Amino acid sequence: MSEYWSRVVRELKPYVPGEQPKKNRYIKLNTNENPYPPSPSVMDAIKKAANASLRRYPDPNCDTLKQAIAEYHGLGRQNVFVGNGSDEVLALSFISFFKQAHPILFPDISYSFYEVYCSIFEIQYLRIPLTNDFDISLTDYQQPNGGIIFPNPNAPTGKLLSLEDIQALLAVNRHSVVIVDEAYIDFGGDSAIPLIGEYPNLLVAQTFSKSRSLAGMRVGSALGSEGLIEGLERAKNAFNSYPLDRLALVGAVEAITDDAYFQSTCKRVIETREQTVAALVKMGFSVIPSKANFVFIQHPEVAAATLYDRLKKEGILVRYFKKPRIDNFLRVTIGTDTDMQVFIEKTARIVTEG
Amino acid sequence: MSEYWSRVVRELKPYVPGEQPKKNRYIKLNTNENPYPPSPSVMDAIKKAANASLRRYPDPNCDTLKQAIAEYHGLGRQNVFVGNGSDEVLALSFISFFKQAHPILFPDISYSFYEVYCSIFEIQYLRIPLTNDFDISLTDYQQPNGGIIFPNPNAPTGKLLSLEDIQALLAVNRHSVVIVDEAYIDFGGDSAIPLIGEYPNLLVAQTFSKSRSLAGMRVGSALGSEGLIEGLERAKNAFNSYPLDRLALVGAVEAITDDAYFQSTCKRVIETREQTVAALVKMGFSVIPSKANFVFIQHPEVAAATLYDRLKKEGILVRYFKKPRIDNFLRVTIGTDTDMQVFIEKTARIVTEG
Repeated sequence: MSEYWSRVVRELKPYVPGEQPKKNRYIKLNTNENPYPPSPSVMDAIKKAANASLRRYPDPNCDTLKQAIAEYHGLGRQNVFVGNGSDEVLALSFISFFKQAHPILFPDISYSFYEVYCSIFEIQYLRIPLTNDFDISLTDYQQPNGGIIFPNPNAPTGKLLSLEDIQALLAVNRHSVVIVDEAYIDFGGDSAIPLIGEYPNLLVAQTFSKSRSLAGMRVGSALGSEGLIEGLERAKNAFNSYPLDRLALVGAVEAITDDAYFQSTCKRVIETREQTVAALVKMGFSVIPSKANFVFIQHPEVAAATLYDRLKKEGILVRYFKKPRIDNFLRVTIGTDTDMQVFIEKTARIVTEG
Repeated sequence: MSEYWSRVVRELKPYVPGEQPKKNRYIKLNTNENPYPPSPSVMDAIKKAANASLRRYPDPNCDTLKQAIAEYHGLGRQNVFVGNGSDEVLALSFISFFKQAHPILFPDISYSFYEVYCSIFEIQYLRIPLTNDFDISLTDYQQPNGGIIFPNPNAPTGKLLSLEDIQALLAVNRHSVVIVDEAYIDFGGDSAIPLIGEYPNLLVAQTFSKSRSLAGMRVGSALGSEGLIEGLERAKNAFNSYPLDRLALVGAVEAITDDAYFQSTCKRVIETREQTVAALVKMGFSVIPSKANFVFIQHPEVAAATLYDRLKKEGILVRYFKKPRIDNFLRVTIGTDTDMQVFIEKTARIVTEG
């Protein structure tokens, strides 16, 4: 604590990301990274662009990348915003749309960064409890609000909401922005992007960090009506004119262009997830049905904190959140088949030994 | 304008960066980029790092880069903050230190992003007029304030303040943060970094975009006491955990490590600046004494707006700010010797033809 800090910064509880160990000692199943590398064309494009032009600023409007994303989703470039990872996109969305007279609404069990954005931008919020089965009950969101945000699939549960449910919410919530945070949508969910034309208050956030294997390059996007995108551009241009560097821009264009590679790696992750779930269920775990690249699990006999520690000693990093309602769960990222075989074997031994 | 925007975003006047034309049609002297490419070791390191590890998040703490910067300046790693360009570093500094009961102070002619940060973060400010000779008179800053910020050398004037002046201000301004924005310091000024040990409220902001030829990779830094750096880390971790991607991190480390290259390119820019100034003075321009990689000039007979337009038609982009007190000046970035010969020849012709 320093006497020079602003009040908002004194009162913050910053977000704590998952551990990023310096050495490759671990099978790393703790931050939902993709087990497969980016498409080879991404690396080629980056190497080609690593030249004397790095002395020049990148395109502040990121037009080429926006165009590629727009074409991929059948939207116009004016419907696409890009930022330095979806965290920056979300931060700018909170300041652009959520500083309102009413509190914003999000699930009590959800991406824990939402509360942090509210504290730095001084936004009121209400946390709406998930049901006992960890479902988001969208009827609970039908109350005066300054905005609504939820991940779909939800994190860290992995549970998916149907498009019908989302559309039903949008139909009765016309006066505030609804952000669907689709960081994990490519692992088995239906995106809300097709609803953008009908609902000018719908913003869909996506990321290149998970399904497109580019966590290391920091690229996220938001898709929505022209009015929402213009609001985001205004906030971005009041914060940082050039958040995406030249190499992130060219890499992301290739990542979205090589669709065959993307489809095949998503499919592999989904297959490995289903095999992992089957093996965990056989061991007695309850596994929340997941449409993400992770599973959220608990065991009737072995405490999550114990399992976390034992796995770490065995060289496997998973994520443990010491928080109400979920402090007996572990979130386990889906790795390669080999990663998950090792994880299953070690977990089986720990569970058997008790 | 959209009904969904927050009030702060509705009321913003976003910063407008200099034009970044898509085609290389221009001699580009408008955004203070370095005319020389980054060190070859930067490109080598980036190409080497463009591998499968891009699927992994970068180090959120940027320890390797912080260590390299700390060693370069003879500081500890706890005295170094890094961000996505110095714009992001400044934005986070405004929210960390400048949201106070008193208004912050900065020069009326200065980096125009300062006002924009104040509007997005709802910070009160007072613009302190430069003297008639465009000097910052630091005695004018001796009044109750929530913080002080100025570029040194100032932009867009290029004028340098002495370390003695800065120290005199720090000696009487102990209770708010003083940010010295040293984006251009390496082109002939003395950095305030040696004063950090004595003044825990001094923050020095620097960038890799100008003297280190890395505008395309978005890396900035702030140097200060441990308390200030910790405040910045808190704000950053409430906004975006990983603003620097893997390639920006390795590129910046090489850029700061290859000191011989850095020294030689800075020296070339300074020499070209002095030759350019001599030629401009010969043509009748008034040239404000510059210690930056640009010159701020006006001609007694040719209006700045006219000269800007004529130069653009001739394929040379410079920067014109249509603002009170400086609307008859042009800011001209120092390019290569060849760039500046062309600029001088075309300018001479325009001035002669009237």
